[in-house]
Amino acid sequence: MGTGQELYKKAKMLIPGGTMLLSKRPEMFLPDLWPSYFSKAKGCSIWDLDGKELMDMSIMGIGTNTLGYGNEEVDAAVMEVVKNGNMSTLNCPEEVYLAERLVELNPWADMVRFARSGGEANSIAIRIARAASGKDKVAICGYHGWHDWYLSANHNGGGDDLSGHLLAGLSPKGVPLNLKDTVYPFNYNNFEELLNIVNTNDIGVIKMEVLRNFGPEDNFLQQVRDLATQRNIVLIFDECTSGFRETFGGVYQKFGVEPDIAMYGKTIGNGYALTAVVGRRAVMEAAQTTFISSTFWTERIGPTAALATLRVMENVKSWEIITEIGTKMRNGWQKLADSHDLKISITGIPALSTYSFNSRNALAYKTLIAQEMLEKGFLASTNFYASTAHTDSNLESYFNALNEVYALIAKCENNDFKIEDLLKGPICHGGFKRLN
Amino acid sequence: MGTGQELYKKAKMLIPGGTMLLSKRPEMFLPDLWPSYFSKAKGCSIWDLDGKELMDMSIMGIGTNTLGYGNEEVDAAVMEVVKNGNMSTLNCPEEVYLAERLVELNPWADMVRFARSGGEANSIAIRIARAASGKDKVAICGYHGWHDWYLSANHNGGGDDLSGHLLAGLSPKGVPLNLKDTVYPFNYNNFEELLNIVNTNDIGVIKMEVLRNFGPEDNFLQQVRDLATQRNIVLIFDECTSGFRETFGGVYQKFGVEPDIAMYGKTIGNGYALTAVVGRRAVMEAAQTTFISSTFWTERIGPTAALATLRVMENVKSWEIITEIGTKMRNGWQKLADSHDLKISITGIPALSTYSFNSRNALAYKTLIAQEMLEKGFLASTNFYASTAHTDSNLESYFNALNEVYALIAKCENNDFKIEDLLKGPICHGGFKRLN
Repeated sequence: MGTGQELYKKAKMLIPGGTMLLSKRPEMFLPDLWPSYFSKAKGCSIWDLDGKELMDMSIMGIGTNTLGYGNEEVDAAVMEVVKNGNMSTLNCPEEVYLAERLVELNPWADMVRFARSGGEANSIAIRIARAASGKDKVAICGYHGWHDWYLSANHNGGGDDLSGHLLAGLSPKGVPLNLKDTVYPFNYNNFEELLNIVNTNDIGVIKMEVLRNFGPEDNFLQQVRDLATQRNIVLIFDECTSGFRETFGGVYQKFGVEPDIAMYGKTIGNGYALTAVVGRRAVMEAAQTTFISSTFWTERIGPTAALATLRVMENVKSWEIITEIGTKMRNGWQKLADSHDLKISITGIPALSTYSFNSRNALAYKTLIAQEMLEKGFLASTNFYASTAHTDSNLESYFNALNEVYALIAKCENNDFKIEDLLKGPICHGGFKRLN
Repeated sequence: MGTGQELYKKAKMLIPGGTMLLSKRPEMFLPDLWPSYFSKAKGCSIWDLDGKELMDMSIMGIGTNTLGYGNEEVDAAVMEVVKNGNMSTLNCPEEVYLAERLVELNPWADMVRFARSGGEANSIAIRIARAASGKDKVAICGYHGWHDWYLSANHNGGGDDLSGHLLAGLSPKGVPLNLKDTVYPFNYNNFEELLNIVNTNDIGVIKMEVLRNFGPEDNFLQQVRDLATQRNIVLIFDECTSGFRETFGGVYQKFGVEPDIAMYGKTIGNGYALTAVVGRRAVMEAAQTTFISSTFWTERIGPTAALATLRVMENVKSWEIITEIGTKMRNGWQKLADSHDLKISITGIPALSTYSFNSRNALAYKTLIAQEMLEKGFLASTNFYASTAHTDSNLESYFNALNEVYALIAKCENNDFKIEDLLKGPICHGGFKRLN
């Protein structure tokens, strides 16, 4: 057991849930054996607490670092901020420059508010949209964070209404029961379901991810847009995850459908905390009729990092690069699976690709991949968030290593090996689960 | 009009409300004339966008920078993070070290969660406390941020129930009406009022600031603690503003009363974004029964800056220094007022001192101070948040300058001058107000 696991054992006594983000829990990858903590990160390399270098062929900071870890131009801008002061009684001008830039990138939009986490951006957008529409009821599709407004959907009659939206089994404990029946989830590409929700409830806001696992069918996005326009509903696209992966901005651009509000997060500051709510003036001005204010939203690193990240992304056309790398990754997975007679299902956009084995042992195989690849010097699971730091040579060495693990999995599928005999620890978690 | 005001005019077109924090709105100090933006900050100096150096004798980043701007030891730690990578697929070990440190500083506590803004920390604490108590209803006293759970108090019968708690007139527009009667404000030092709320509602949580404008009377805090214990209510102390100003940690230490959860923010990272929720194991473990998770809470600058800030604060005993400086400031204000026959009322703890003129022109005089002091090279208003960077010499030059402004105000009070004739722009705002 490495230094990281020792520290993680301590962490579980000090931090309920062990980490700040469910998706970075060691149990989501390789219980008891995941290195858990980093000392250094650069490009697509991470050094663990024992100084061992690992190639990150997994989630790249859960998709924050599309320019790789430690991008020099972004870091240089942040260094300047640290040198010149990151906070003061006066405001930082960078927030105005960034607002201007984001309005340029979203020509239908006029105004911007910033926050420091995706959950906050989601809460700000919902507050503004509810204030603008004068209605409390919201229809949602996708993952929109941990706040009360969203989790309250699991108070509805169904009990686990959010189960179809990224994370099943999210407990809304501690969320006021009064919020029951304020948020109505609908399934992606199911326009009839949304229409029914809108027809039977006084919906003021529709919030959705533009896409997650697959794209729109039957003009779905345009249908939603038309419905929102007809019924005077505020339409919000949550681009916290999808933004800057397929286009220079929102993935909505690919489909020619414009929302009233869009949120960006994750990759917009290349790992530095910044999230943005961008919207039309008529809607955004409602922020002035309600109270939305926080001390650390005035901090200077966030907007500075975002301005530098936008500059680099535009220069290198990062969305094209990561889409190409992600596509190569998917092709590689499929080729490897075919060559070992394994069946896999790949979902997501190329830059945010996930797959699973079509097997009752899928989670165990996922665990085996993390375990075996770790020994070979890789952080790997069954998903890959591409960055511009990933090279063909990285992919080649990754696939050479993965080939050996697929060979083991093929033997398990053929009953030559038992997967339980190959795993050195417990099977990874598949979602939200209490830690012991 | 300086470059800052020009940019701010643009900002009001791009950002609803103009800034990210109400308290940093130029209109809160000196409408149309406040420099608004900074290029550099160091010690207690701020440089505006025209390169003019100003001595910050006002809110020091709204109380974030008790060690002054650009503290070298804190900044060096942050620089190391930028150099070695601030984000990765693995977690940062600093969050565990910081959790350990905060548990040491709060011996009654066992577990910690971190966020990046005070509003988030407040929402996390409320979620955990509600989950632990199994009850939705909360009694509050003080200012606890912008989130739905808190603002919903203004949906109660009173319409502006929060008016006694820092900010009057906060509109809860966009906050679900269903949340009406979930949050009950009580007045500080009014135990009977709290008792009545607890007796007539199924209160599961009491959240309060330990003190804001004045201290506890008649053993108020112990009475609240005893009530919470007897009724199985989770008691939360919000130390986001008060923490590390009077003691090395919560101001609650001065009164020998311990909560079940405490939150820290603002000054804990000396201007870098980090907030913490610290609590007893039995309560904090409830976080595992609900979903509280955010990508940017895994960022490394926050906990690293906080560890360095705690180290420096402890070494220099910053809370003693800022209390001494704040006390000198109050004495200076009073002496100056006396010498000009002006009546003022000073409130707050020494390190967070505020005063107002006992005059119907109080807001206009406040504006005049900002206007005149700005011309003399000071950022000043009628409040002062002390830092270790403020020296006796700073205070002396400040009071020499302020003496001249008080002389003007005395002439206004004596009807020799009209205050309207002295002001070059509109009177500052006294609270939450829509911008045009």
